[in-house]
Amino acid sequence: MWPDNRHQAAVLRLLRDGGPRSRAELVDAVGLSRSKLAVEIDRLIDRGLVDTAGPAASRGGRRSSVIRIAAATRFLGIDIGATTLDLAVTDGEMRVLGRVTERTDLRKGPTAVISQALEMVNKLRVETGTPRFTGAGVGIPGPVSFREGMPVSPPFMPGWHRFPVRETLAAELSCPVLVDNDVNIMALGEMHSGIARSFEDFLFVKIGAGIGCGIVAAGEVYRGATGSAGDIGHTSVDPHGPVCVCGNTGCLEAFFGGAALTRDALAAARSGRSPHLADRLRESGAVTPVDVSTAAADGDPFAMSMVRDGARRVGQVLAGLVSFFNPGLIVIGGGVAGIGHALLAEIRSVVYRSSLPLATGDMPIALSEMGDEAGLVGAARMISDHICHDQGTPALRPA
Amino acid sequence: MWPDNRHQAAVLRLLRDGGPRSRAELVDAVGLSRSKLAVEIDRLIDRGLVDTAGPAASRGGRRSSVIRIAAATRFLGIDIGATTLDLAVTDGEMRVLGRVTERTDLRKGPTAVISQALEMVNKLRVETGTPRFTGAGVGIPGPVSFREGMPVSPPFMPGWHRFPVRETLAAELSCPVLVDNDVNIMALGEMHSGIARSFEDFLFVKIGAGIGCGIVAAGEVYRGATGSAGDIGHTSVDPHGPVCVCGNTGCLEAFFGGAALTRDALAAARSGRSPHLADRLRESGAVTPVDVSTAAADGDPFAMSMVRDGARRVGQVLAGLVSFFNPGLIVIGGGVAGIGHALLAEIRSVVYRSSLPLATGDMPIALSEMGDEAGLVGAARMISDHICHDQGTPALRPA
Repeated sequence: MWPDNRHQAAVLRLLRDGGPRSRAELVDAVGLSRSKLAVEIDRLIDRGLVDTAGPAASRGGRRSSVIRIAAATRFLGIDIGATTLDLAVTDGEMRVLGRVTERTDLRKGPTAVISQALEMVNKLRVETGTPRFTGAGVGIPGPVSFREGMPVSPPFMPGWHRFPVRETLAAELSCPVLVDNDVNIMALGEMHSGIARSFEDFLFVKIGAGIGCGIVAAGEVYRGATGSAGDIGHTSVDPHGPVCVCGNTGCLEAFFGGAALTRDALAAARSGRSPHLADRLRESGAVTPVDVSTAAADGDPFAMSMVRDGARRVGQVLAGLVSFFNPGLIVIGGGVAGIGHALLAEIRSVVYRSSLPLATGDMPIALSEMGDEAGLVGAARMISDHICHDQGTPALRPA
Repeated sequence: MWPDNRHQAAVLRLLRDGGPRSRAELVDAVGLSRSKLAVEIDRLIDRGLVDTAGPAASRGGRRSSVIRIAAATRFLGIDIGATTLDLAVTDGEMRVLGRVTERTDLRKGPTAVISQALEMVNKLRVETGTPRFTGAGVGIPGPVSFREGMPVSPPFMPGWHRFPVRETLAAELSCPVLVDNDVNIMALGEMHSGIARSFEDFLFVKIGAGIGCGIVAAGEVYRGATGSAGDIGHTSVDPHGPVCVCGNTGCLEAFFGGAALTRDALAAARSGRSPHLADRLRESGAVTPVDVSTAAADGDPFAMSMVRDGARRVGQVLAGLVSFFNPGLIVIGGGVAGIGHALLAEIRSVVYRSSLPLATGDMPIALSEMGDEAGLVGAARMISDHICHDQGTPALRPA
């Protein structure tokens, strides 16, 4: 089911990213002769990876037909969040055909959560008429050994350490599976159909319960020597700051992760410094980062200062990364990104002021517009990339 | 003079990095059939890129002969420093055959400096018996547009902004030329024959007049979206720190660059806080970063505290980069690296304490052992990489 060589892989990627094309267009794009390309396309058709479409095909004129990714292609994206399971089925061009979301609790352990996911998969199979999946991609909210397809010491996920998520799902689904952390798949989603579509080198920064960064270099996710690249939540931003769960002091997450926001919001509600948050605490018995976002949007001065302070510290870390990595774009996503433009304005202000002009000249900093769908599309794209590479290229040797 | 295809390119890289090999060994390594490989090797021989060596060749037995990079292959490495011109000629395996160093002053402008370099090239031609160069690599101590082969707004180099260094040298030398900043070529040198030889993802940190970082990802120099990646000297380490030449406050270089060390050493000498530096100032009328190094090595407490403070700030920046980039190795080089183990110990202490265990688990931090030669070997390696890629691969489209 894999392409035999790099020409076949190139055809698959062109059709996936650009949609159906005539054979003539493919000849131009792939750079093979018409007759050699015809051989490769026939092989792809024989193996069910592409098929013919459009009026030319119905007249039986194979040479003038339009080629597309096989209509039966189905990818499964599984985005495992701290409190939700989010699944989608896409076609071969990563268009979402069906989607289902349920609440979950990762503390139930991997077997229970995966069992719940498999029941959701069955619903999606029926809903989208999918007998079998071409491949599945999985995102996990914690450190992952991409090579081994398993979580490694994920915080707040008892029982998941070194659980063979990839092997378990590959056996249950009878298709190739890849597992990565949630931030990396969100970055891939943005690259496939979001704001990063035309960028080769960019950063996707997720600000949610934790703060992480997906790194895309030369159009591929960069995972680092041991797979932990992008872990920016524990960068020190103030040696005199609060103690972090990791044991160091003044980490970015200790100021602006979901837990830090909840802690500060609760204190502000109790002390009455934020009337808006105090009301919220009285009404519902708790305050959340979403309440901070709402309060800031409503003009509550203390909530606004919380957002500005947090955004300034995020900007401080990103300014250093911009000088170091020189990305073409920074995308901000994750739950806290819902705070929107107040957050963005402050991050921009710090980064553009503190980084070197050479690096920031044309570099946009933008909010993700894909929301939850980034992870699902990215998970599908990850496994599609894996399948669209021929055996000689590095993507088949996950590191 | 370029290889025709990726098989030829693979043969060239194998011979360059591993030395001469028999045809049988090449069949195993390249993965072509014996007869197909013979065709590619014959083409490489016809075009003067490889030749036969060893006893098998002298008996005329081509099929059992040993193949090597053509003995006539000659690369030129030009390392332009702030006050020195350093040139070397290497063979096809990057072994230095001849080397010449002269003092220069970049403020004389590019025409005068390049003219001086070309006279040095003529000396080297005679010394090494080199009629023509296969290619030349050039390192420049400032920001470079790699794609255009020219410096961009380099500080302290009047007249060099957008001077066509690559085109000028390519015309004068009649060979392919590539130009990059000095830190990137030093990183390549370490990868070719230094401590980074077996690493695919590592950082080379140069601490000299400025502080910069060469980034190697998946065995290639990563230059970023606009070519300025690795500029870590202007990362803010203390918002209340001294004003930097770049206009911001508290940049790493404002604490520990050559200029900052000279400034602090002079103050310490004048105030008498450092008896060693005061002696030095009296004797020679000036103090330099080298004097700080010597004073620290001699146990002068104030000089030792200067080194520790600077190293701590370097470590602080590197700790964040380790979490972000997850390198397999960090190499410390450049003039200030001559301070040696006191510097290294403090950097290690901060990085290992502040970065996450997953990222630092097996990551060594080491001093460069190549010294000045890193840049020369790296410059030769850069142009060799360019030539060893076939037309279909990204390296021929410098970005």
